[in-house]
Amino acid sequence: MFEAIELGRSVEKATFEVEVEQLRADLIEAQRALRGSEVPVIVIVSGVEGAGKSAVVNRFHGWLDTRGLRTATFFEEGEEERERPPYWRFWRSLPPRGTIGMLFGSWYTQPIVERAFERIDEAEFEHRLRRISEFETMLARDGALIVKLWFHLPRDIQTKRLRKQLQEEKEREGKGKKGKGKKGKGKKEKEKKAKKGGKKEKRAEEDDLSATLRDYADNYERFASVSERAIRLSDIGLAPWHLIESTDKRYRDLTAGKILLEALRSRLAEGKVSHTTAPHTPAQTSELSGKTVLDTVPLDYVLDRTDYEVRLKKLRKQIRALSWRAHEEHRSTVVVFEGWDAGGKGGAIRRLTGSMDARLYQVIPVAAPTDEERAQHYLWRFWRYLPPAGAVHIYDRSWYGRVLVERVEGFARPDEWQRAYKEINDFEEQLTEHGIVVVKFWLHISKEEQLRRFEERERVAYKKHKITEEDWRNRERWDDYLAAVNDMVARTSTGCAPWTLVAGNDKLAARIQVLETFAQRLEAGLKR
Amino acid sequence: MFEAIELGRSVEKATFEVEVEQLRADLIEAQRALRGSEVPVIVIVSGVEGAGKSAVVNRFHGWLDTRGLRTATFFEEGEEERERPPYWRFWRSLPPRGTIGMLFGSWYTQPIVERAFERIDEAEFEHRLRRISEFETMLARDGALIVKLWFHLPRDIQTKRLRKQLQEEKEREGKGKKGKGKKGKGKKEKEKKAKKGGKKEKRAEEDDLSATLRDYADNYERFASVSERAIRLSDIGLAPWHLIESTDKRYRDLTAGKILLEALRSRLAEGKVSHTTAPHTPAQTSELSGKTVLDTVPLDYVLDRTDYEVRLKKLRKQIRALSWRAHEEHRSTVVVFEGWDAGGKGGAIRRLTGSMDARLYQVIPVAAPTDEERAQHYLWRFWRYLPPAGAVHIYDRSWYGRVLVERVEGFARPDEWQRAYKEINDFEEQLTEHGIVVVKFWLHISKEEQLRRFEERERVAYKKHKITEEDWRNRERWDDYLAAVNDMVARTSTGCAPWTLVAGNDKLAARIQVLETFAQRLEAGLKR
Repeated sequence: MFEAIELGRSVEKATFEVEVEQLRADLIEAQRALRGSEVPVIVIVSGVEGAGKSAVVNRFHGWLDTRGLRTATFFEEGEEERERPPYWRFWRSLPPRGTIGMLFGSWYTQPIVERAFERIDEAEFEHRLRRISEFETMLARDGALIVKLWFHLPRDIQTKRLRKQLQEEKEREGKGKKGKGKKGKGKKEKEKKAKKGGKKEKRAEEDDLSATLRDYADNYERFASVSERAIRLSDIGLAPWHLIESTDKRYRDLTAGKILLEALRSRLAEGKVSHTTAPHTPAQTSELSGKTVLDTVPLDYVLDRTDYEVRLKKLRKQIRALSWRAHEEHRSTVVVFEGWDAGGKGGAIRRLTGSMDARLYQVIPVAAPTDEERAQHYLWRFWRYLPPAGAVHIYDRSWYGRVLVERVEGFARPDEWQRAYKEINDFEEQLTEHGIVVVKFWLHISKEEQLRRFEERERVAYKKHKITEEDWRNRERWDDYLAAVNDMVARTSTGCAPWTLVAGNDKLAARIQVLETFAQRLEAGLKR
Repeated sequence: MFEAIELGRSVEKATFEVEVEQLRADLIEAQRALRGSEVPVIVIVSGVEGAGKSAVVNRFHGWLDTRGLRTATFFEEGEEERERPPYWRFWRSLPPRGTIGMLFGSWYTQPIVERAFERIDEAEFEHRLRRISEFETMLARDGALIVKLWFHLPRDIQTKRLRKQLQEEKEREGKGKKGKGKKGKGKKEKEKKAKKGGKKEKRAEEDDLSATLRDYADNYERFASVSERAIRLSDIGLAPWHLIESTDKRYRDLTAGKILLEALRSRLAEGKVSHTTAPHTPAQTSELSGKTVLDTVPLDYVLDRTDYEVRLKKLRKQIRALSWRAHEEHRSTVVVFEGWDAGGKGGAIRRLTGSMDARLYQVIPVAAPTDEERAQHYLWRFWRYLPPAGAVHIYDRSWYGRVLVERVEGFARPDEWQRAYKEINDFEEQLTEHGIVVVKFWLHISKEEQLRRFEERERVAYKKHKITEEDWRNRERWDDYLAAVNDMVARTSTGCAPWTLVAGNDKLAARIQVLETFAQRLEAGLKR
């Protein structure tokens, strides 16, 4: 594959200058059109070491309007990042709609490096690549333009460049040491660094870097073959790769610029509805020809108050201890509450939070997205609030809004909510793979019980705020919601993140069921 | 001070239940009014160990509508937090306007603990308390309602409670160990933990916690006296303390609830203009009776191109090496670019970024704030983008907009932009105290030169996007801007963060001045 682009192409300085003048004007024009669009542009800057990835990005900083341009670099994962699933840091770096984000290396770097050094096996490598394709497909279907650039160098030229790079590094190191020798005054800042072992750690990292560079050169063939496989596996129609010969800098930069321009132009020419480019097979929706999964919920179950008090007390104590233990063991938990209006979400959440130390949990109320959130894929705002190590995050309504209210009210197009099931399953799989305990509750009540509660809410002063016109409107669409809930449970109740259907007509019974389920799931999670 | 509230107050269960019903309805009502207001509510939950701070916050979760409520806990600083000035994590946790944020301990915990254990001396303690008062004053003047709750326990009761707490902890620990014994299967998650020394570290932390609890009890008097001083020093009119006797839980919770309710009611009764509550002495604005500081800029200085090329090449190499060294030494840099429209900011920024590896810098273009940013103090969005360790963040326009465009266009009231000088100086002081190098450029050109460039921009295709109606409008207010710039430089060119006035009529000279200044300042910063 790579040999096919080792053609020794180059561009004369004079030609370059003429072409660049036009290219700049065109890029700026395209960027302006982009600004008014719904399209986020993700430019992946990848390729072999020494090909000049940083230089290309610098060039783009010169050519483009920097007001709509951000870059993201992925050095070693930081602590906050290690506490979340691996893709958390990529989600954080996604550009908002109407802007361009240049990502160095991105999600490709680790799978390639780890496979080349045989830290992961072939099956794991393919699993990672599949995840990448799913991720990119999801973003592209949501309207993102993904431009993937691979900068290539022939072996001999790479070796030469890396050698030069290593030399420069050594020079820098020499100077760095001299610089350090000069410093004597003990300062707060330095103590801080010393405390976290700053310098030594840094030195080790650098040795590591040099070693890595040498490894890259020594392992040219290995890298070339792993990279080629990575490119082939991820060269999907919605996000194709562009291989760029990088021996000549002018050719490299001009080509990269033209590819971006072309991609922008053709994407923007598609117009606003263009995120339906890919055809989708419609998902099956449940025919309401009989029973739904909610009919299995024993709504007539009633718990008496004495029994409730005894079990509540025991469960509270148990959950208190479990949640502290989870905190100590860095085990995080994500709890999802969905349910009918007046289904008792609030009360159940309060019993749950009341059982834990207030420093261990967060309730994430999901209301209308902010404009920053609207400028991203709908899952973005949920990734945003993933818990740090050892915390419990409780989502009061969740990403399931996509297949519930957005489906029923038509806020999402059929192709959008239909593909959401898979996107959600993938999302939750990433959570559980990372060791996060996922607990999902649907608070079920009968239609009659809902009416009783609505009427009660209109009577009691401190409950009044809970009932709005919207609740009554939703009630009229009960059957549509029933179909949506049935599909949701059928398609997203997975082994690692099963739904618990809570029998909610009796509030006391419902709360105990929630607390008991939570305790069981957390305990099981702690044993993993 | 504390003896005065050791009165043994308590509330009967029956009374409590009646009062709570009313309180809940009132709180919900107040919260609804809050939602439509511009007021962010910061509730500081502080006080002695064992007083039940977590229980109070749980209670608030039960009473309030959680959709407008967030809590923030400050455990040990994380890595991302340690890389920024200490207040970064507090800024991140501030509630948006219209919502309530409950902060555990917050900015008071560390100064009190460190002073009680004599890790800091009296002068440092007072410095920290002064910073707190300035911070709270700033937020309050911006419209925030700050409710500071201190939960107190008499000595004997605290000792009893802590003993119980320690016992529970030991029990938990025992169980935890048993639990851990059961686990055998090597899993990815565990490896990860082991890698960062998870368990051992955790164990150490816990021992530390027990030790701390014992210390708290043993050092009751010390803590009481340091806390009392902290409270006195920070009991400012705009953010007063409320001391709450916490022996009886019902009295404690009811009192806390009533204090919050009263604070909300009186603050919301003040109406929309209420953030001018405190009278301000107007700042002096420069009389344009003659020269401004900008007259000192040698605008006729010209650099010839050969000279430019030689110096540019040398500077690029120097900056490349310096920026890598800064990265290695974890030294961060904040660069501010302000200047006249068409003053050459873009070109100067490109020369600067072109001298560094693209992985080391970020350009932060400052345009209209997002709605999340508008829901916060104006400095919030700049804190948000502070660089991680070893990075260079370049602000293309900055917080100085407050005293430039916002002043001139009347987007900020006089009292707002007048107090901004001090707020900005305090902000930059925090940056430099943390070891961040701060470099600020004003790109100056003459009024005639600006006209020439405006006209050029309208001619050249790829420059056209740079010139708008607004630029022409701004030009008409040249003299107002001149006064604003003069005041800005006079009042914010500090020892740790001086302004560099760039002679911009000659673009080449301007770029060299920018690069040279940057190199000098970074080099000096590395020697600190």
